[in-house]
Amino acid sequence: MTDLNKLSLTELTTLRRRGEFDAIALLDACLHRIAARDGQVRAFEYIDPERLQRSLRTTSLLGSGLEGIPFGVKDLMDTFDMPTGWGSPIYKGRQAGRDAGCIASLRACGALAAGKTVTTEFACFHPGKTRNPRNLSHTPGGSSQGSAAAVADFMLPLALGTQTAASIIRPAAYCGVVGYKSSRGEFDLGGVCTVSQTLDSLGFFVRDAHDLIIVRRALMRGAEEAAPSKPARVALVRTPHWAEASEAVQAAVERAARLLANENVIVDEVTFGPDDGALTEAHKVVMAYEVARSRMFEYTHHREHLSAPMARLIESGLEMTFEQYDRAITLAREWEKRLDELLDGVDFILSPSTTGEAPAGHESTGDPLFSRMWTLLGAPAVNLPAGRGENDLPIGIQLVGRVGFDDMLVRHAAWAHSVLADQACA
Amino acid sequence: MTDLNKLSLTELTTLRRRGEFDAIALLDACLHRIAARDGQVRAFEYIDPERLQRSLRTTSLLGSGLEGIPFGVKDLMDTFDMPTGWGSPIYKGRQAGRDAGCIASLRACGALAAGKTVTTEFACFHPGKTRNPRNLSHTPGGSSQGSAAAVADFMLPLALGTQTAASIIRPAAYCGVVGYKSSRGEFDLGGVCTVSQTLDSLGFFVRDAHDLIIVRRALMRGAEEAAPSKPARVALVRTPHWAEASEAVQAAVERAARLLANENVIVDEVTFGPDDGALTEAHKVVMAYEVARSRMFEYTHHREHLSAPMARLIESGLEMTFEQYDRAITLAREWEKRLDELLDGVDFILSPSTTGEAPAGHESTGDPLFSRMWTLLGAPAVNLPAGRGENDLPIGIQLVGRVGFDDMLVRHAAWAHSVLADQACA
Repeated sequence: MTDLNKLSLTELTTLRRRGEFDAIALLDACLHRIAARDGQVRAFEYIDPERLQRSLRTTSLLGSGLEGIPFGVKDLMDTFDMPTGWGSPIYKGRQAGRDAGCIASLRACGALAAGKTVTTEFACFHPGKTRNPRNLSHTPGGSSQGSAAAVADFMLPLALGTQTAASIIRPAAYCGVVGYKSSRGEFDLGGVCTVSQTLDSLGFFVRDAHDLIIVRRALMRGAEEAAPSKPARVALVRTPHWAEASEAVQAAVERAARLLANENVIVDEVTFGPDDGALTEAHKVVMAYEVARSRMFEYTHHREHLSAPMARLIESGLEMTFEQYDRAITLAREWEKRLDELLDGVDFILSPSTTGEAPAGHESTGDPLFSRMWTLLGAPAVNLPAGRGENDLPIGIQLVGRVGFDDMLVRHAAWAHSVLADQACA
Repeated sequence: MTDLNKLSLTELTTLRRRGEFDAIALLDACLHRIAARDGQVRAFEYIDPERLQRSLRTTSLLGSGLEGIPFGVKDLMDTFDMPTGWGSPIYKGRQAGRDAGCIASLRACGALAAGKTVTTEFACFHPGKTRNPRNLSHTPGGSSQGSAAAVADFMLPLALGTQTAASIIRPAAYCGVVGYKSSRGEFDLGGVCTVSQTLDSLGFFVRDAHDLIIVRRALMRGAEEAAPSKPARVALVRTPHWAEASEAVQAAVERAARLLANENVIVDEVTFGPDDGALTEAHKVVMAYEVARSRMFEYTHHREHLSAPMARLIESGLEMTFEQYDRAITLAREWEKRLDELLDGVDFILSPSTTGEAPAGHESTGDPLFSRMWTLLGAPAVNLPAGRGENDLPIGIQLVGRVGFDDMLVRHAAWAHSVLADQACA
């Protein structure tokens, strides 16, 4: 018998079309995998297998092809029937009494909120308990670490995350799964803990880039399913940080460029962004300045329960002047326009996802370097698995799209994933 | 003795500079006014005078000139020490257990969260209980109705609101106060109930436009206070809806244009937006489509406690296709660029705030017609009181600024308010 927990959404959709989809068997297979593995991987903050099995009998409201699909919910997102702790002892066991908009929408499509997945503290840099399922002694990345690990380890076919710096692209790359971070403002963030007003956006983890189309169309209630789309022209952007990427990452990006060119996609090498990495620095300013505001309540009332790195991040934001913040925002606006112009004639940007493989240890979630600038500019991005690095851990390539054109990006990503599949982790 | 509750923030700041500011006397004067009037005006959803008097002894964290200033909090915003009901029986008495980012930031400046002000149901169109303090048989407008009424009726010098359609500009115009709606993304909306991801933004009500500078600088922790600024060039935009404005509103806008010209401001009449009001229609599509998502949980689990207009709004959004929504967003993006170009050489747009005075009765909050397009485009806007209409109720003019240049807009509004003051309601 097939390991149902290993099937992608696309494969499950095919089963459904054939009338062979069995939601109860799928859930059982996922729960079996979770029971076997989560003691070590620690992807879940909260899960209640018995209630899940009962709630599969809940009727779906709209129905969009996700009926009976179990998905992971980053513990930053409110759920009416599970606690939501934001990765902080301050809110441990907090009951929100309602669903975040994105959760209610997925449930309305008949999908099954399977459990709360581990987030770093307030989706910033202080790690949660999750381990990298490819090598338990390494970090899975952050902040959406439980969601990335659960999908990578075949516990669930889909899990939600958010990104403020690199919180989807990096754990997706480190765990070897597909991660999609949406354009600024693309999805409802109501009921999701705010980290940074300017930078936050929603996204999700799957194992096949084609699944991104399925989930987006369900959330957006698109009329019919869109097909993968071959790009005509791609820009290879090494960024000012290229020298900080490992040889394996550099080689993976260049190999992807060659494979695309072999398929008659035009690949231009393009320089984008100030040489000195000023966009990356501007991201740090905007994030710290805004986190100081979003966490002002906790800083005022619960400082003793903030980790030292969290308190330092807030304090660095409080020390910044409005003028520093304003300069960073102004620089971002200028480069947003240039990115829009660049992507007027180019289907997506090809760039590294991370500096390298997941580092050893659990004290850090790794370096968000290669995502900061794209996140600052509000661009949608996809991580595609692209083989393994020096330590036999996954590495990824990043596809960056035009703001507001997420639909096209995921269709191109679905096409690219199948072309580059021989690079992907098994 | 002065009626301290009638002073603006600017006047209170002058008292403070002279060493004559008495926070306890100010709070007492406000509470006295509230006790005398709120039985009729019904601006407050929740207020606890005794606890307020006790909490004045709380120390301030940062100190930015708002120490001891009582402010109203729209009941859409989480507060750790007062219930937050979102204008819905579903959430009556809900305890959020924390402060929204904007509330924590104002409290950190030493300001005093005085009470929760009435909002329409989920900040949409079903009215709350508030009456227009200028004529109790008329609506105060919506959705930030309690905040506008409390400031207009001299209960508080400052109150916070949010706008998704016209929820600040319209009640400000109807109640005869200054209302400021910020640029999309300008302020942290963490802990504020999401209505529409694309459209929501924060703002506040004061009685003197100069106060807007003070509050913005406190929230943004600007280094020094900025002065009012005279505009060089203004664009008069009648919009495609001009014929739907009352004669008094048309006359007020034209009078403002003349008064500005008398001060040697260049006033150009400019046509902006499609003739057929397509931007207004696009706003309706985006709002309904996104409200259907933000309220999916309540629609699924608590439909019997939604008003009929709220359920209809959600259902109209559920009936829309993604393609309709996408067309509306695409139109908005195109006109956002044109607005940015127009405001590159123009300091602000002058336009009507509403179609006319507050309508009689409390079944409706009036027509959001003249705000929908500017809100869709994410622009900051200020309502300035501009005399009275046919029924001796306030009318207003709207100043629309460039996205992201709120600082300049409020400085221009402060200057314009003093020039146009002879038009203002006493």
